[in-house]
Amino acid sequence: MNILFIMYDQMRFDYMSCAGHPHLHTPNFDRVAARGVRFTNAYCQSPVCGPSRMSFYTGRYASSHGAAWNGYPLRAGEVTLGDHLRAAGMDCWLLGKTHMRADAAGLARLGLSAETVIGARQAECGFDAWIRDDGLWGQGPDGDFDLKRSPYNAYLKAKGYDGENPWADYANAGVDDGDDIASGWFMANCDRPANIAEEDSETPWLTREAIRFMTEAKGPWCAHVSYIKPHWPYIVPAPYHDMYGPNQVPAAVRHERERDDPHPVYAQFMGNRIGRAFSRDEVRAKVIPAYMGLIKQCDDQLGRILDFLEETGRAQDTAIVLTADHGDYLGDHWLGEKDLFHEPSVKIPLIVMDPRKGADATRGTTCDALVEAIDVPATFIEWAGAEVPTHIVEGRSLAPFLHGEGQPEGWREFVISEYDYAVSPMCVNLGLESKDARLFMVFDGRWKMMHAEGGFRPMLFDLESDPQELTDLGADPAYEPQRQKLYAMLHRWALRMSQRVTMSEDDIARLRGRSFRRGILIGVYDESEIDPELASKYRGRMRQNHLPAGSRAESEEQA
Amino acid sequence: MNILFIMYDQMRFDYMSCAGHPHLHTPNFDRVAARGVRFTNAYCQSPVCGPSRMSFYTGRYASSHGAAWNGYPLRAGEVTLGDHLRAAGMDCWLLGKTHMRADAAGLARLGLSAETVIGARQAECGFDAWIRDDGLWGQGPDGDFDLKRSPYNAYLKAKGYDGENPWADYANAGVDDGDDIASGWFMANCDRPANIAEEDSETPWLTREAIRFMTEAKGPWCAHVSYIKPHWPYIVPAPYHDMYGPNQVPAAVRHERERDDPHPVYAQFMGNRIGRAFSRDEVRAKVIPAYMGLIKQCDDQLGRILDFLEETGRAQDTAIVLTADHGDYLGDHWLGEKDLFHEPSVKIPLIVMDPRKGADATRGTTCDALVEAIDVPATFIEWAGAEVPTHIVEGRSLAPFLHGEGQPEGWREFVISEYDYAVSPMCVNLGLESKDARLFMVFDGRWKMMHAEGGFRPMLFDLESDPQELTDLGADPAYEPQRQKLYAMLHRWALRMSQRVTMSEDDIARLRGRSFRRGILIGVYDESEIDPELASKYRGRMRQNHLPAGSRAESEEQA
Repeated sequence: MNILFIMYDQMRFDYMSCAGHPHLHTPNFDRVAARGVRFTNAYCQSPVCGPSRMSFYTGRYASSHGAAWNGYPLRAGEVTLGDHLRAAGMDCWLLGKTHMRADAAGLARLGLSAETVIGARQAECGFDAWIRDDGLWGQGPDGDFDLKRSPYNAYLKAKGYDGENPWADYANAGVDDGDDIASGWFMANCDRPANIAEEDSETPWLTREAIRFMTEAKGPWCAHVSYIKPHWPYIVPAPYHDMYGPNQVPAAVRHERERDDPHPVYAQFMGNRIGRAFSRDEVRAKVIPAYMGLIKQCDDQLGRILDFLEETGRAQDTAIVLTADHGDYLGDHWLGEKDLFHEPSVKIPLIVMDPRKGADATRGTTCDALVEAIDVPATFIEWAGAEVPTHIVEGRSLAPFLHGEGQPEGWREFVISEYDYAVSPMCVNLGLESKDARLFMVFDGRWKMMHAEGGFRPMLFDLESDPQELTDLGADPAYEPQRQKLYAMLHRWALRMSQRVTMSEDDIARLRGRSFRRGILIGVYDESEIDPELASKYRGRMRQNHLPAGSRAESEEQA
Repeated sequence: MNILFIMYDQMRFDYMSCAGHPHLHTPNFDRVAARGVRFTNAYCQSPVCGPSRMSFYTGRYASSHGAAWNGYPLRAGEVTLGDHLRAAGMDCWLLGKTHMRADAAGLARLGLSAETVIGARQAECGFDAWIRDDGLWGQGPDGDFDLKRSPYNAYLKAKGYDGENPWADYANAGVDDGDDIASGWFMANCDRPANIAEEDSETPWLTREAIRFMTEAKGPWCAHVSYIKPHWPYIVPAPYHDMYGPNQVPAAVRHERERDDPHPVYAQFMGNRIGRAFSRDEVRAKVIPAYMGLIKQCDDQLGRILDFLEETGRAQDTAIVLTADHGDYLGDHWLGEKDLFHEPSVKIPLIVMDPRKGADATRGTTCDALVEAIDVPATFIEWAGAEVPTHIVEGRSLAPFLHGEGQPEGWREFVISEYDYAVSPMCVNLGLESKDARLFMVFDGRWKMMHAEGGFRPMLFDLESDPQELTDLGADPAYEPQRQKLYAMLHRWALRMSQRVTMSEDDIARLRGRSFRRGILIGVYDESEIDPELASKYRGRMRQNHLPAGSRAESEEQA
C-alpha cells in the first residue's frame, strides 16, 4: 500500500461541505470522507506552520522536538517519519511545503553536508525531496524571506512570467485599475483574480507534480503532497476569485464581552496588526471569499488526483489522508491568522481513508475521539508494517478507529497544543523573557484551558455550554475545580518521558537482570549466596601472587 | 587557564576530613578546599552513574538529554561540554570513565563512524579520549559486561599480570586462605588486600596518565580525570586495605520506623539484594573500611597531582574541580549503592578552585547555595571565555559564588534529581510500565520530596527537624501544604523549555519583526497602512497580463 499524505496549509476544519459548511461545496473532500473516516476532534500540536509540521513529521509534541516556531530548526539527529518508514521498507517523499529549516550548526557539528543523501534528509526533516517549495517567496527592503531556490518560480519563469519573483507579481497578485500590480499581500486586493492562468497557479502546479510522482515512483511510498494554499496571500485566479461573495461570508464568531478585561496574552493578539485588521468587516468580506475560492480550487485539484488513482487502478492500494497544519481565525474572536487555541485555529480537518478491506466497516463515518496530529505519523508507521516505536513517537495509530474497533483502551483523556511567541513583539510588550512566552492548551473534550507561562491566569472555556468559546471562565472562582483538573492533566503530560529516544521497550526488557550474569555482582556477601556454578566463575584463575610481602598476614590478623 | 575536572565515582559528600568525617583524613581534598570553595549543597542530576554523568557532560537535566540510566545511549547530535568548550577555543579531554554508550542506531542513521574525529566525539560524549576506561570489566556466564577494550587491563597484562582479565583477578580480588582468588565482588573479601602492587591499581594508574597528559598536552585544555574508585568492587591494595577497621565505621543512619509501612518504591529498594546485604552489619564492617581505604588512596594520588602542578608552575593556571557522580548509601536507610534521594546518595562532594585573583576572596570558604551538577559544565564554559548558551545548557555558572558576589539574582529555589528504574526487576515487581518507573526529587533547601510516577504517594522529609531523613511525612495530612508547594515547583520545572536547542536568545531577538521587512506582509489591508517607500516595493514590476479575457471586468463588477 502507498500513502498519499495531503496537507493544505491553514485550512480550517469547518470549510468543507462534509463538515457542514453552508456555502462551500467540496465534493472531492467529501468523496474521500465517504470512503474513509472524518475525525471531528483532531488538533494540531501547535497552531502555526513550523512546529505543527515538525510534529506531523516526527510524531512528537512541539516541546519534545523543540522546533518551537517557524524557522526554528529541527535539530540534526531528531528521528523523523521518514526514518521510521524507510526502516519499514517504505520510501517517504516530499512534494511541496514543510517549513523545515535545516539545523546548520548541528549539521556542521556532525560534519554533514546537505549534498549527501543523509545530510539532505537531515535538512529536509527526513523526507526525500521530490520537489520542495514552501510558497513564501516574500521580498522586502531587507531582502528575501526565504533564501532557498523556488522550483515554482522557476516553473513560472519557464512559462514566460517575467521578473525576478513571478510568485509575488503574478501568482499572488492581481492587476489594479491602472494596470499595475495589485499585490495579494494587500487584503483590499483579495477579490481580484490573480494575474495568472489558473493552471499555472500553485495548487494545480503541485497537483501535476503529484501525478507525475505517482506515475514515476516505485512503491511502496508515502508521499507528502503539501499545498501552500489556502494560506495567505489570499488571492486566487479566475474563476475561483468570484465564486463566493460577501453574502457567503459567515458572521464572525465573536462577542464584545471578549474585549472586556481579556486575558493579557489574548489582549495582545487582539491588539496586534493582524487582530485589528481581521476585526474589520471589510477585511473579512474581501478575504473569506478568496479563502473559499482557494479551497474550492484545492478541492477541484484533489478531484484530479482521485480521478488519476481510479483511472490507473491505484485507488485500491493508496491510502489517503487529508489534513491541515492548523486553521485560520478569519476574524473569529477578533483575531486573524492562527496562534491561539480557539477551535478555528487549533482544530484541524482530518480525513483518513484506508482502502483495504479491514476499514470497510467505517467508511463514510465520523469519529469524535480526541485525536492529535502526532497520531497521523503513528498511523503511517503501522500501515508500513512496523510497530510504533513508543519511546520516540508520542502519537498513537488511528487504525483501530478505522477498523471499527472503537476507542482503544487507555486512549488519551486530553489533547495538548502549544505555542511559543518568543519571536513576536508581543513577548517584548508583555515584558517577558523568551522562555516565558509559551502557551499550552489542555482540552479534555469539554473543558479547554490555556495555560500561559510568565505568571498569568489561565483562560478556560466550557465547550458544552459555550461551544463558540465566547466566555472565558479562567478567572471565575466557580470554575477552580475544572482548572485544577486541567492543570493536573497538563502537569502529568509535562512530566512525560519524551527524550529517552535511544532505548525501546524491548531494549529495556533485554537489559533487565542482564548485568548480574555478565559479572556485575552487586550486593553479594559471599559465594554461598549465589549459584555454585556461577560462583566458580570467580575462582581459580590466579597464577601469581602480587601481594607485597607480609601484607596478607596483616590482613588475616585484622579479619 | 586549564581545567582539571576530577571525578571520583560513587564518593560520598561526607567522606572527606574537610566535610567533617571523623576518621578519614584527606589532606589533599582539604588542600584544594583550602584554596577554593566547597559547595555543601551540591546535588547530582540522577543518583546513578550514566545519567548523572551525561548531565555533567551536557549541562542538561536527565530528562532533557534522555540518557536515563546506565547504558542508555546519549543520542547522537546532543550538544556536549566538549562542543561548547571547543567552540570557545579550549580542548576537552577524557581520561578514565564516562559510562557513555554510543548511540549506534543514531550514528548509523547519520552515517557517522567512530573512526572519524566527529564520530568518535559523538561516541565519547563530546570528549576527545586520551584514555577511556570505565573500570567495569565484569565477566559472567553470559559474557562480558563491557565489550570495549580495556587500556587498564592491557597495562596490567604488559606488567605481567596473567589471564584474560587481570582487572578482575588482581586489581579487584585478594587471595584466600587456599591461595585461590578471593574476588572483590564478594563483600566478605573486602578486608583483604587486593592482589596487586599498589602502584598498579586503578587509581595510581590513572593518576600517572593524568600527569603524562598534563606534561604533553597543549593548552588551553579541560581534562576530565575520571576515577572509577571508590566505586565497587570494594577492595583496595595494601597498605590501604587495613588503614581503617570496623571501629572507624560510623553507625548506620537508619531507624526501624523506616521499615514500618514504607513507600512502595522505597520498600522495593530496601527489599532487593543490595538493600538486604547492606542492612547487615557484617557487610558494613567489611565494606566501609575498604571504601575509606579507596578514598584515602584517591587522596594520596590527588596529592601527587597537586605536587606536580606546583612543581611545574602550573598550579597558578589550572583550575581544579573535585566531585563525584553520586554517593553511596553504605547501609544508611537500609540501602546500599545509590539510586534514591537520601543525602548519602544524591548529594555530591563539590570543591571548586579557580586559581585566578578574582577568586581570592572566597578561598577556603564553603557555600551552601543550592547547586546542581549541571552548574559545573556551565562554569567551565564561562571559564573558557564563552557565554553560557542558556537555550542548551540548563545549569548556571558558579563563578559568582567564587568571586564572593553571593547568590546571583534569580538563583534556583529548588534542585531536581531524577531516577529511572525501568530496567530493574523492581519495575516489574511493582507492575509498572517502563514509562512509570520514574522518580523525581524536589528539594528546596529544607523540604525534600520524592515524586514517583505510577500512582504512588510522594515521600517527604523535613531536613530542618529531621536532618537524617528518618521520618517520611509523605502520607501525613499535616504536610499537605508543603507537598503542594513542592509539587508546584516540580510542575514548573516539568514545563520548562528544554529542547529549543537550535535557537539562542540572540537568534530569537534577531528574528523579531524581521519577516515584515522581508516581504511577509500579514494583516495589511491596503498600502495606506504601511510606509510609502515599503509600499512601492509591491508595485510596478508586472510586464504582462495573464488574466483570462473578461475576468478582470467581472472582478470589477463584483467589487
